[in-house]
Amino acid sequence: MKKDAINVGIIGAGTVGGGAAAVLVRNAELIAHRAAPIRLAAIAELDRARGEALCSELSLPFDILTDDWLTLVGDPDIDIIVETIGGVELAHQIISSALKAGKSVVTANKDLMATHGGELLNIAGEMKTDLFFEAAVAGGIPIIQSVKEGFAGNRIGQIMGIVNGTTNYILTRMSESGADYAEALAEAQALGYAEADPTSDVAGHDAARKMAILASIAFNSRVSFDMVPCEGIDKISAWDIAYAEQFGYAIKMLGIARSDGQLIDVRVHPLMISKSHPLAAVRDSYNAIFVQGDALGSAMLYGRGAGALPTGSAIAGDIINATRNILHDSKARWGCTCHLELPVLPLDETLSKYYVRICVFDRIGVFAELSEALTANNISMDSVMQKRRLTDDRAEIVLITHQVRHADMMAALNDIERLDCVCEVSDYIRVEDESI
Amino acid sequence: MKKDAINVGIIGAGTVGGGAAAVLVRNAELIAHRAAPIRLAAIAELDRARGEALCSELSLPFDILTDDWLTLVGDPDIDIIVETIGGVELAHQIISSALKAGKSVVTANKDLMATHGGELLNIAGEMKTDLFFEAAVAGGIPIIQSVKEGFAGNRIGQIMGIVNGTTNYILTRMSESGADYAEALAEAQALGYAEADPTSDVAGHDAARKMAILASIAFNSRVSFDMVPCEGIDKISAWDIAYAEQFGYAIKMLGIARSDGQLIDVRVHPLMISKSHPLAAVRDSYNAIFVQGDALGSAMLYGRGAGALPTGSAIAGDIINATRNILHDSKARWGCTCHLELPVLPLDETLSKYYVRICVFDRIGVFAELSEALTANNISMDSVMQKRRLTDDRAEIVLITHQVRHADMMAALNDIERLDCVCEVSDYIRVEDESI
Repeated sequence: MKKDAINVGIIGAGTVGGGAAAVLVRNAELIAHRAAPIRLAAIAELDRARGEALCSELSLPFDILTDDWLTLVGDPDIDIIVETIGGVELAHQIISSALKAGKSVVTANKDLMATHGGELLNIAGEMKTDLFFEAAVAGGIPIIQSVKEGFAGNRIGQIMGIVNGTTNYILTRMSESGADYAEALAEAQALGYAEADPTSDVAGHDAARKMAILASIAFNSRVSFDMVPCEGIDKISAWDIAYAEQFGYAIKMLGIARSDGQLIDVRVHPLMISKSHPLAAVRDSYNAIFVQGDALGSAMLYGRGAGALPTGSAIAGDIINATRNILHDSKARWGCTCHLELPVLPLDETLSKYYVRICVFDRIGVFAELSEALTANNISMDSVMQKRRLTDDRAEIVLITHQVRHADMMAALNDIERLDCVCEVSDYIRVEDESI
Repeated sequence: MKKDAINVGIIGAGTVGGGAAAVLVRNAELIAHRAAPIRLAAIAELDRARGEALCSELSLPFDILTDDWLTLVGDPDIDIIVETIGGVELAHQIISSALKAGKSVVTANKDLMATHGGELLNIAGEMKTDLFFEAAVAGGIPIIQSVKEGFAGNRIGQIMGIVNGTTNYILTRMSESGADYAEALAEAQALGYAEADPTSDVAGHDAARKMAILASIAFNSRVSFDMVPCEGIDKISAWDIAYAEQFGYAIKMLGIARSDGQLIDVRVHPLMISKSHPLAAVRDSYNAIFVQGDALGSAMLYGRGAGALPTGSAIAGDIINATRNILHDSKARWGCTCHLELPVLPLDETLSKYYVRICVFDRIGVFAELSEALTANNISMDSVMQKRRLTDDRAEIVLITHQVRHADMMAALNDIERLDCVCEVSDYIRVEDESI
C-alpha cells in the first residue's frame, strides 16, 4: 500500500489530543514538505462541545467529529489512530482494535504502556504495524527514539531520569525559596502543575510507569509498573534540603534503571545528587533523562515533560515516523525489542548510600549507641555525622553511610528507632556521589 | 532486496573508524537482537600496521583488510560503507562512488557535509539510498535524528549549540580556575583536546561546519560552511570572564541558528548567556544543543561531542538505521528535506546586545565622549556602564548595549577607537539575556 497522503484519526480531544491536533493543523504545510501531507481526518470525542471548540479553534469542519471511536477504527481511509483518552481499559480496547485492523497507532498513554505494553507491542508485531508511544515518557523529549535507534549500538548501563515535572517543580521551589513541602505543593496546585489529589505524582507512581517503559527499551527486557518500587517526596523537609545544600547535593525525585545485562535494578525515589551533576541543574517542571552507554559515555536529554503542545510535538513526531513507514511500506521497522527476560533486583537487595536524619535525646553516648546499631546491621559510615541542638534536651543527628543493602539500612533504622536515646528517625534519603 | 544480515565496510581505520569498528564488534550480539546481525566485513586502510593493530585489538582476521577502498565500494556483498578518513576530496569521491553503487553510506565527515552535503544528498536521493551523518555533529548526541524525526512536527525557531568541545574546555578552565586564554589552551593541548594548530577549533571553523549542517536540517534550506560568519575565542581575557561573572553571565562559544521562515541568521561566536540558561551548566569538553520549537518549547541534548567511542556510538546508530531501511526495503526513507532556498542574513544586519571593554585615559568627560560616539551610531546603552582604575592615568570602562545592528556596533567601536580619550577597545562580546 503506497499512498501519497496519510489520514489521521484522533480519539480523545482533551488537552493531549487537542495539542496533537493543533500541531498537525498549524504545521501541516511544513510537515507535508518534511514527510508527506498528513490530514487530520477525524476526531472521536464523547463531549460534543469540547470537540466543537477544538474544531473551531483550528478551523476544522465539524463533520470530522464523531462520538464513536469505532467509526475511526473501522474506517479504511484512516491510516493512523492517535489514542489520547488516557486511562487503561477503554484505551486498551481502542489500541488493540486499531492494531488488529492493521492501523498504525500513536499513544501518549503511560499507564497503559507500563502495564499492557508487551501485549500490545506483540499485537503490533503480529499485524506487522507500528505502535509508537514517545509522548508517554517525558513529553517532547525524544528519549524513546534515541534509545531505540540513536543509542542502539550501546550497552546501556544506566538511565536516570527526572520524569515527573510536578515533583521537580516542588523540589525546585523548596530548594530555591526555602518553602516547605506543603507550601510548594500548594503552589504547584495553584499553577496547575499538580492535581487536587497529587498522589500519583508525589508518591512516584507516574515516574515509575515511565521508568518501566524506559527500562524495558534500554535493557530489552519487559519491565512493568508493578515491578518498580517507589518512594515519594512527601517526607522531604526544608531541613533535608538545607543539609543537602551544605553537603554539596541537590535533592531530586529520580527514576533510576540500571542493568549489568543479568539483572535490572529499577526504582523511583528522592535522591541526593552532586550539584555538579547535569541533572542537578534541571529546574522547575522540566524533565531530563541522563543515559550512560558503553560507547556513548554520558548523555542527557532535557525538555518539557508535559503540556498540550510539548506532548503534541512528540505525538506529531511519532505520526511522522508512522507516516514514513506507511509510505515506504516499512511498518514494524522497529518492532518490540524485548527479547530477554531479566529478573528485577528486589528492593531489599538494592545498594545505596543513605543520608539519615535522626532526632535524639542529647546525652553522652548517643553517637556510640547509634554507631553500634549501624554496625550490628553491616552499615558503615561515610565521613559525615553531625549534630544540631534542637531544644535543651533534644538534638538532631545527620549522617551519611557508605553504600549498603537497603534491607540492612531498614533493619538498622528499625533498631535505631527503638533505642532509648532516640525520639524518631525523621527521614532517610539515598545519596549518589558520581558527578558525571 | 530483503536480507537477513548486513555487511559493513569501513574506509579509514583511524580514531573514528576504529571507534566505530569497536562498537560494532563488541556489541554485535546486542545489535543483532535489536536490529539484525551486522558484520564488519571489510576495512580499507592505507597504513597496514594501523589496520592490523585494530584487527588484533578486536580479534578480527587480517584478511578483511585492504589498502584499496575501491574494493569495498565495488564489492556487491557490502551493504553499508562507513567513510571515516576525513578531509574533503578523497572522501567526496568515496561517498559519491558508494552512493552511485547503490550502497548506504554513513559518515562522520563534517567538513565534507558542510560543503558538499547538498550534492551528496541529491545523489543519495537519485539512487534511492541513504546517506547518514549523525556523527558529523556533536558526536554521540542524536541531534540530527531528533531534528529529522522527533522534532519534525515543529517549526524550529532557534538552535543554539556548544558544538566544539575544545573551546568549551578552554572557557570552562578560564572560568573555573581563573586561567588566562594561553594557559587554558596549553592545558587543552596537553590533554589532547586541542590540536598543535588549534585554529579550526578556536576560530570557530569547526563549529561553523556543524551549524551549517544543523541549520540546513532545521530550516529545510541548504546552509554551507562559507555562509556562516565566525569569530573566535582567542581575544577572550580573564577580565571578560570576571566581568561576565559579575553581571550574572557565563561566556560560551556558541553556534546560533535562527529563522522566522523567511531568513536564516546563523553564526558562531563567543556569547555571554545567563548563568541560569541550561547551556551555561555545560562544562569541560561536553557538547550540548539547545532547540526551540513552536510546539516543543525548549529542549536540550547533551553529551560527548568527540572521541572514538562516542563518535562510534553515533556511527553505529546510523548503521542500525541504515540496516533497518535495507531490511525493510525502505531506503531513502528520510531523504533530503531542503526544499526551501532561504537567504542568510548578512552579518552586518544581525542584532545583538554587546558587552564592550574599553581602555581610556581617565579624565573628565570620558563617559560623555563614549556616549556620544555610541549615540551617533544608533547604539543605546543598557543599564551597565562601569569604570575600573588601571593605572594613575588609565581606566577600563565596561558597558553593555541594548540590542543593536552589528554594522552600527562596529562603526561605533571604530569611532571610539579614534577618540583622543581612548587607548584601545579591548574586547567586545555579544550578550543574550534569555534565561530559558
